[in-house]
Amino acid sequence: MMTAGEAARAAERVMARCDELARISETPGQLTRVYLSPEHLRANALVASWMQQAGMRTWQDAVGNICGRYEAASEGAPAVLLGSHLDTVRDAGRYDGMLGVLTAIEIVDGLHRANVRGTQAIEIVGFADEEGTRFNITLLGSRGLTGSWPAEWLACEDAQGISVAQALAHAGLDATRIGDAQRPAADFSAYLELHIEQGPVLEQEDLAIGVVTAINGARRLHCRFTGEAGHAGTVPMSHRRDALAAAAEWMVLIEHAARQAGPELVATVGTLQCEPGAVNVIPGVVSLTLDIRSSDDPQREALLNHLLAQAMRIAEQRGVAFSHDIFYTIAATPCDGELRDKLADAVRNVQRRVLLLPSGAGHDAIAIAERWPSAMLFVRCEKGISHHPAENVMVSDVALALRAMSLTVRELVLTP
Amino acid sequence: MMTAGEAARAAERVMARCDELARISETPGQLTRVYLSPEHLRANALVASWMQQAGMRTWQDAVGNICGRYEAASEGAPAVLLGSHLDTVRDAGRYDGMLGVLTAIEIVDGLHRANVRGTQAIEIVGFADEEGTRFNITLLGSRGLTGSWPAEWLACEDAQGISVAQALAHAGLDATRIGDAQRPAADFSAYLELHIEQGPVLEQEDLAIGVVTAINGARRLHCRFTGEAGHAGTVPMSHRRDALAAAAEWMVLIEHAARQAGPELVATVGTLQCEPGAVNVIPGVVSLTLDIRSSDDPQREALLNHLLAQAMRIAEQRGVAFSHDIFYTIAATPCDGELRDKLADAVRNVQRRVLLLPSGAGHDAIAIAERWPSAMLFVRCEKGISHHPAENVMVSDVALALRAMSLTVRELVLTP
Repeated sequence: MMTAGEAARAAERVMARCDELARISETPGQLTRVYLSPEHLRANALVASWMQQAGMRTWQDAVGNICGRYEAASEGAPAVLLGSHLDTVRDAGRYDGMLGVLTAIEIVDGLHRANVRGTQAIEIVGFADEEGTRFNITLLGSRGLTGSWPAEWLACEDAQGISVAQALAHAGLDATRIGDAQRPAADFSAYLELHIEQGPVLEQEDLAIGVVTAINGARRLHCRFTGEAGHAGTVPMSHRRDALAAAAEWMVLIEHAARQAGPELVATVGTLQCEPGAVNVIPGVVSLTLDIRSSDDPQREALLNHLLAQAMRIAEQRGVAFSHDIFYTIAATPCDGELRDKLADAVRNVQRRVLLLPSGAGHDAIAIAERWPSAMLFVRCEKGISHHPAENVMVSDVALALRAMSLTVRELVLTP
Repeated sequence: MMTAGEAARAAERVMARCDELARISETPGQLTRVYLSPEHLRANALVASWMQQAGMRTWQDAVGNICGRYEAASEGAPAVLLGSHLDTVRDAGRYDGMLGVLTAIEIVDGLHRANVRGTQAIEIVGFADEEGTRFNITLLGSRGLTGSWPAEWLACEDAQGISVAQALAHAGLDATRIGDAQRPAADFSAYLELHIEQGPVLEQEDLAIGVVTAINGARRLHCRFTGEAGHAGTVPMSHRRDALAAAAEWMVLIEHAARQAGPELVATVGTLQCEPGAVNVIPGVVSLTLDIRSSDDPQREALLNHLLAQAMRIAEQRGVAFSHDIFYTIAATPCDGELRDKLADAVRNVQRRVLLLPSGAGHDAIAIAERWPSAMLFVRCEKGISHHPAENVMVSDVALALRAMSLTVRELVLTP
């Protein structure tokens, strides 16, 4: 394992490289780096140079992922895959994604300096697009490796009307060769992703790192209560069909039921609009969204069905109508049990206390787990803030994460 | 009292005149008639001609009210004042206000045709501005009679930057002579206003007319819950400070408490905005309005104080902040007990069942009641709709209202 001193120095370098990468942005004074932009290609080149310094052979694949391989003792052996993404949201933080790629390079660098080769190789991938900022489709990088790009993705357009196929061509890539990015199942034995938590749990538990149990599945719904608008002064309470009062009753139930369901489940009403929306008019129509996530799909479905039944009951009792439309669904991705246990053992070694927690946000591991055993290590981030310039991590936490991750990787690749 | 036949013919004429007045509008295909507009002056002239046909002497007063007097047997006797307003909201209905003026003319017309003079005169006023559409200040007409215009009203501007003083001048009136509209207290013994209900109660009770107990007082508040925005996937339910969840809990309490308080009280949350307002973000700030009205000021204040205390409690329990700002207050206006009883007796005579109900909307009677005993008669309107082109009344209801009102007025002016 890395010593504390080695990890501290490596963590300092990771932080400095996060800063350096953050300067490659299409928006001055902010960090914005989207798929197949000139900045994406510059970031790939910089990361490749760091991979090469760590003794890796590098290449950019057919969908724009930057890849590196640290060869095993025996050339062509299967590899442990490490990585995360290099693209960002608009006005992003500098750790979401990048931290996983740069820490992976340090782990390889440690082996390279010690001149150690494993029974397995190590590959690192800097995924080209996880956030979906440019084309409103996500996991383009990781789905390149799994070979599961839907055909219609090539025609998706960005805000300027440029299609994915055109953007690939502008970047020197060929839309007809997308399949070349696909990797045979035998190429990798495992995938490990280090990522900032993007939530407050580790900070509130006073822990630097934690092990992910699963990436939560989610459903998102547009919901609507339709009652009857009326004069706020002249319609008695008993005669009202107030859409907002109905929505309020439902929102209280949503929060209560989600709390009861346990820590793996969250439910959020993030937007709400009243019509007509005047101080002296009873709301006739209320539109709201529901976002419900859990690491356990059947639990999530059961709760959602319960909540929808409650909405119908509330609506019926009040003489209003309720309708809903599910516009987004993604299943939960459980992490591989064996890999998760290995990560947990390593965390126990460096931090003593192991916290297992679900991931509320999506990650490249969602796609990779379809093909290869996958697991994730979370690093505490300040106040749980992400997707914002205030995103922050502590260098000492990064050092601890490096020690846990290097312990896990070495165990995987050095075991005969 | 008017016979049923007389009342039916008078009601037909009232409906026709409502239609005729509705054609005097500044917006083609709609009805919009605002204070001191050319259409206002045309409406005044038309109404004056109808008053004259009913045997009345007419004049336009210093604030633009159109006035008529049907003299008593003894010239200069005190008068019973009847009336309502002739101005409208934008894209208005044709009965709100006008119905009270035109029915009053029919009552005088009945006495005039019978050549009957009373111990008291009857005056009718078509108030110039009750709605406040043009200058965002209300009751300008009735406060002309009471002499209670605040000095600052003259400087209020409309959307085009024209002040009340300038608009008066454009209409041939003189801002320095506003005080001339004021009437000595001894001029009137009573004020009776007939108006559409603007609510659903009479319709749901299957009654044509009802007697108003009081015009509700109101307070309006801007309220705000400030919690903390967060990622809808990564912040567990137990770690949230969700401003919308806090608002929902409070809204349920508002509705429950208002229902418990009894039929004289209403409370409405008419607008609500979430910030940042995204499907996958926990709301950090929720702004909402509360409109609370009652015919009983102490009851309203007690409930409002209770609700504000509940909001503070909810906020404290959730670690969020609550703030509020009362931006509008008007006290309740109880109707005069003796006049209300006279109206109730008349209603009992023509409809058998007497329903006493508060007025949720404001009326000229609010101002007039500060100086003279006042009471109101409500006429059923279709679905409770007002301030909308779909505003509608039944001619048979107008006939019944005419009979009840004429009974009351005759009792007042013919009693020796």
